[in-house]
Amino acid sequence: MATDTKPSPDSVMRSLYKHHAGEGLKFDAARPKPVAGPRDVIIRVKKVGICGTDRHIWQWDEWAAGRIPVGIVTGHEFVGFIEEVGSAVTKYHPGQRVSAEGHIFSGTDYNSRTGNAHIASDTSIIGIDRDGCFADFVKVPEDNVWPVHADISDRLAATFDPLGNAVHTVMSAGVSAQTVLISGVGIIGLMAVTVARAAGASRIFCSDVNPPRLALAKKLGAAEAYDARDTGWLDDIRTQTGGEGVDVLLEMSGADAAFSQGFRALRNGGRAALLGLPAKQLTFDFNEHIIFKGCTVLGINGRRVWETWYQMEKLLLSGRLDLDDIITHEYPLEEFETAFQTMISGEGIKVLMNL
Amino acid sequence: MATDTKPSPDSVMRSLYKHHAGEGLKFDAARPKPVAGPRDVIIRVKKVGICGTDRHIWQWDEWAAGRIPVGIVTGHEFVGFIEEVGSAVTKYHPGQRVSAEGHIFSGTDYNSRTGNAHIASDTSIIGIDRDGCFADFVKVPEDNVWPVHADISDRLAATFDPLGNAVHTVMSAGVSAQTVLISGVGIIGLMAVTVARAAGASRIFCSDVNPPRLALAKKLGAAEAYDARDTGWLDDIRTQTGGEGVDVLLEMSGADAAFSQGFRALRNGGRAALLGLPAKQLTFDFNEHIIFKGCTVLGINGRRVWETWYQMEKLLLSGRLDLDDIITHEYPLEEFETAFQTMISGEGIKVLMNL
Amino acid sequence: MATDTKPSPDSVMRSLYKHHAGEGLKFDAARPKPVAGPRDVIIRVKKVGICGTDRHIWQWDEWAAGRIPVGIVTGHEFVGFIEEVGSAVTKYHPGQRVSAEGHIFSGTDYNSRTGNAHIASDTSIIGIDRDGCFADFVKVPEDNVWPVHADISDRLAATFDPLGNAVHTVMSAGVSAQTVLISGVGIIGLMAVTVARAAGASRIFCSDVNPPRLALAKKLGAAEAYDARDTGWLDDIRTQTGGEGVDVLLEMSGADAAFSQGFRALRNGGRAALLGLPAKQLTFDFNEHIIFKGCTVLGINGRRVWETWYQMEKLLLSGRLDLDDIITHEYPLEEFETAFQTMISGEGIKVLMNL
Amino acid sequence: MATDTKPSPDSVMRSLYKHHAGEGLKFDAARPKPVAGPRDVIIRVKKVGICGTDRHIWQWDEWAAGRIPVGIVTGHEFVGFIEEVGSAVTKYHPGQRVSAEGHIFSGTDYNSRTGNAHIASDTSIIGIDRDGCFADFVKVPEDNVWPVHADISDRLAATFDPLGNAVHTVMSAGVSAQTVLISGVGIIGLMAVTVARAAGASRIFCSDVNPPRLALAKKLGAAEAYDARDTGWLDDIRTQTGGEGVDVLLEMSGADAAFSQGFRALRNGGRAALLGLPAKQLTFDFNEHIIFKGCTVLGINGRRVWETWYQMEKLLLSGRLDLDDIITHEYPLEEFETAFQTMISGEGIKVLMNL
Repeated sequence: MATDTKPSPDSVMRSLYKHHAGEGLKFDAARPKPVAGPRDVIIRVKKVGICGTDRHIWQWDEWAAGRIPVGIVTGHEFVGFIEEVGSAVTKYHPGQRVSAEGHIFSGTDYNSRTGNAHIASDTSIIGIDRDGCFADFVKVPEDNVWPVHADISDRLAATFDPLGNAVHTVMSAGVSAQTVLISGVGIIGLMAVTVARAAGASRIFCSDVNPPRLALAKKLGAAEAYDARDTGWLDDIRTQTGGEGVDVLLEMSGADAAFSQGFRALRNGGRAALLGLPAKQLTFDFNEHIIFKGCTVLGINGRRVWETWYQMEKLLLSGRLDLDDIITHEYPLEEFETAFQTMISGEGIKVLMNL
Repeated sequence: MATDTKPSPDSVMRSLYKHHAGEGLKFDAARPKPVAGPRDVIIRVKKVGICGTDRHIWQWDEWAAGRIPVGIVTGHEFVGFIEEVGSAVTKYHPGQRVSAEGHIFSGTDYNSRTGNAHIASDTSIIGIDRDGCFADFVKVPEDNVWPVHADISDRLAATFDPLGNAVHTVMSAGVSAQTVLISGVGIIGLMAVTVARAAGASRIFCSDVNPPRLALAKKLGAAEAYDARDTGWLDDIRTQTGGEGVDVLLEMSGADAAFSQGFRALRNGGRAALLGLPAKQLTFDFNEHIIFKGCTVLGINGRRVWETWYQMEKLLLSGRLDLDDIITHEYPLEEFETAFQTMISGEGIKVLMNL
Repeated sequence: MATDTKPSPDSVMRSLYKHHAGEGLKFDAARPKPVAGPRDVIIRVKKVGICGTDRHIWQWDEWAAGRIPVGIVTGHEFVGFIEEVGSAVTKYHPGQRVSAEGHIFSGTDYNSRTGNAHIASDTSIIGIDRDGCFADFVKVPEDNVWPVHADISDRLAATFDPLGNAVHTVMSAGVSAQTVLISGVGIIGLMAVTVARAAGASRIFCSDVNPPRLALAKKLGAAEAYDARDTGWLDDIRTQTGGEGVDVLLEMSGADAAFSQGFRALRNGGRAALLGLPAKQLTFDFNEHIIFKGCTVLGINGRRVWETWYQMEKLLLSGRLDLDDIITHEYPLEEFETAFQTMISGEGIKVLMNL
Repeated sequence: MATDTKPSPDSVMRSLYKHHAGEGLKFDAARPKPVAGPRDVIIRVKKVGICGTDRHIWQWDEWAAGRIPVGIVTGHEFVGFIEEVGSAVTKYHPGQRVSAEGHIFSGTDYNSRTGNAHIASDTSIIGIDRDGCFADFVKVPEDNVWPVHADISDRLAATFDPLGNAVHTVMSAGVSAQTVLISGVGIIGLMAVTVARAAGASRIFCSDVNPPRLALAKKLGAAEAYDARDTGWLDDIRTQTGGEGVDVLLEMSGADAAFSQGFRALRNGGRAALLGLPAKQLTFDFNEHIIFKGCTVLGINGRRVWETWYQMEKLLLSGRLDLDDIITHEYPLEEFETAFQTMISGEGIKVLMNL
């Protein structure tokens, strides 16, 4: 089953890559196909998703300029089929339908050896630090491969990466029979609404400054969806929670004002899970928001490998997740400019591309 | 607000009491109304439920003969209104609609002082060790009173005691995004189906030897409801859980065979919450069922005071509990013989009586 | 046993009270003795401790001026004997040696009804919001009384309040077989060193800017005690923890720089327990310190009622706490000016007064 | 660095193997050295320990006859140096001092992919299911290798396997500031005494029927060491724990009577960690011991990979473990008959052999 020397019938592939230190991506019809090392798996990509991170890379903002190596294939959300396996691969074989954890780690530090590889100290990410999945083929280590359950569609499997962020946040906070405020209903915040509902949240409150997204949040099961620019919504939450505040805050906006509003909505002894990344340092009242209230705050990064993936699979198989209104568009890879514009304009939410 | 000396307009009340060391209960139209001590609350009872324990008391089985003092008013599931409060009561006032935790404790041991009064070492229970709620009035300590939320009906509030058993079991085990086997779908087992579903279980499997109850379990949301006398159902569970077994076992039958079957259905590292009381000691394989599998086993008794009650309130207010098919009959107190027969025959599930 | 009308042989007592809106406290030899309500307990005070909070009240800083009602008896750390109990008190009797939880709550909100009264929303504190223990007698509700174990000396029992802060912080974070950084070794930080050691911390690192306190921290069992003004100590911690950082941060300084240093010392996925109160809002990098690292942050307030007290009792009875070097001075109440100066100057650490 | 084809200067090695289906082991001076697959590591063994399991294999009892393949090299406790690494090994290199987790798993099931490989469903164990470490060389997969910290001696590192059982039991139960009963002070029970003490147990009680081992338990830090054949010791535990019972039971005897005694000593709401394997099914009162008491029971198997190993390393580096009195003898491998007799007779506790 060794493939290292297998003559490829076609050694090139289609790809989208970061061709210069500026806006946009470029299509290349003849990029060399990746070559598997002994413990690698080569996956033929079928369907990919465009992440908010991909937008940053497209727009080449300050973060992207400081992080992304010009020249790499981007993209990290995908589903496909195993094409080849390296000579020392033992767990998988060609033909399996798979997705993959995009955070790659050597497996030598404390966290990656104790079930928390998502916060390994030596992580590199496909499509960000090395070639990603906006291409016919992507290479990942065997230890990053996730076989997709036969009852889960490609359309859903292509969203495992962001859906995993939502599941990790929701499950870390623990929402079963709890009241929950989801602060920020972008792509992952909306996913968190349906995930929190399926995971047993008793009532879900949402806040954002985007009315159409708030309307969608209600459709997905939020009891209340507040425009955070209105006054009185924090009082309303307190009234609706018997004067206590919500049990759980899921911070998914990264917005300065949302941090203090969210913690104000949280009851004493509540739990806050922070996923949204503030653009800069925040001025924050630790006494009022955390110490006097006796709150627990959880930093959320990526997805647990593989605890989150199992939880996600179970939630999907339960039939209780409603992602149809969140996955709004699909385009062929060659129409990537339209795909990105649809996503950047806000017309689309989760936008997929097919290979 | 002192009431100790308040002249009662009517010092007697209707009641059902255990009149002899044998079968049945007797109606008494003129039992003396209870008198409040300084920290007691007298509640005018509106609606009560008949528990499986009340059936044991009615039938005067070995357990009842060894535990129940002849002469007491029985019953421990109820809702009503505060009629009087003792002279030192500070938290409640006449007119409030309330239920109560029936486990009474002095508040001096470790568990009752650390949020776990449900397992206090000096517990006495209303309707079992002292006068209960099958009467116009019941007396409980102030610290046992639970004010009922305005949006929860009397019909549901009268079931807080058994529903609390189900909630405590489900929430202790933790079912969010987990596969669950509920072993035994009697009254509390059926309640556990709808509770587990509302609390976020991904898929619920049930087993019992009572086909109509199994059919109801499916109606309430179980993915599969197995007749435990059939062969192959354990294999089916394993197939449906990817070969692993269920994440969570809720043992609600107390049946000998169900214990070993339930643990066999449980995955390595799974959690088992035991509520059902075996009639005698069991012969049990600790190696196979617990030690080699690395399982966690939780003994479940009563309901946490008040953590479980808050969880129950949130679940009820979420609108996601379906108890209509479980609360099957209501009778006036005077028709208690019909009420008990309906419950004992299995025609009724949860049977209520009105005062 | 009712005492409400008991004629007191001596209706006045000695006390220290906040006599004006400025520096200092005043001695009053004839303050009226408190009168017990039905559920109160009157305690004859034997020994009290001077808290950092008492220093703020003495110095009448901005916080004190905004919080403390002029005229109250101050002090909240003490041990004594029950003198009288109110008419409805059932758990205690005169003559018992006791201390008390100084946070008083009505017992009606979520937290006070679920074992977390320390973060009740309606807390008032003895010696801060109402009369305290710098007097011959102090009144507390029955539910706040803690009977002192016969094997624990008055000297130690008088420090239950601050020791409880240390125990609550250490036990919330969980230090068993973990590396720990204690940031700030004031009174409670020093107590945390010996508590963490007794509670099973594998190695304890301390930081502060006070060399004598750092020396004492080492004597109490710290592996390393760093002057936070020196360079290189964060690197040294990382080296000593195999490159990972510490498992647990106990933030007890409230200092701005210490927050970022402490989180920098913490490993990915570590836990930080925050007890020290920053004087103002902090500018904080949530991404670097909490979110990317996947850390858990715990706000710590007061002591759990009564979980922390039981833990404290067990730790004291284990014989493994070393508090002799922390409790440095004792004075008669009448020498309160010397006592306060000893504490304020830093010559003394925990300073007690005897009645 | 590929070694698959490396010509070995010496292709044979010394070993102890199970030469027939009966008592004893046989020395073989010329067993073929193991050959590394691409992901394997070959370790030159320096020091090994004799486990209770090895005694079963030596004595060829019913369990051994049903499990052990005749012909294998036995032994699973060891320390050594990496001699060779397979062609696809990336984390380790020849010359590193290492031990290894003896439970080998394919890494494809739920538990092995979520940090709980110790309860993987497809485990095989070195020295039990396949060749072990009583030989100059042992082969293990790269994923099973544990690099030994430079500050830990070979003598201690050779005991990682049983010490890990003790650490896993103690840390799973959680002993920090808790009272603990260790039921059974064989090798692992004695290790658990010193581990529990280092991990912060407030007071440790032990029971056994072997007076010399009980005396050693006291020397290692047990507050009380009871002969379980005496009457009154359960009452004494209750007295010493304020009437409550112990917080934690560590069941390490597997003895029938010890199970019910241990649970009787446990307080309501306590935690029991079960490591000892009963020789057969037990007749057990679930109501009294688990359900009414609201206890938590944890099945303990092996050691968590790698959480337990990190905890063990920290405990050893803390300098607080006292294993000198537990590791009693060392012999050259060739004196294996003396070594086994020393261990089997009870004269030795942990007996090591050097290669």
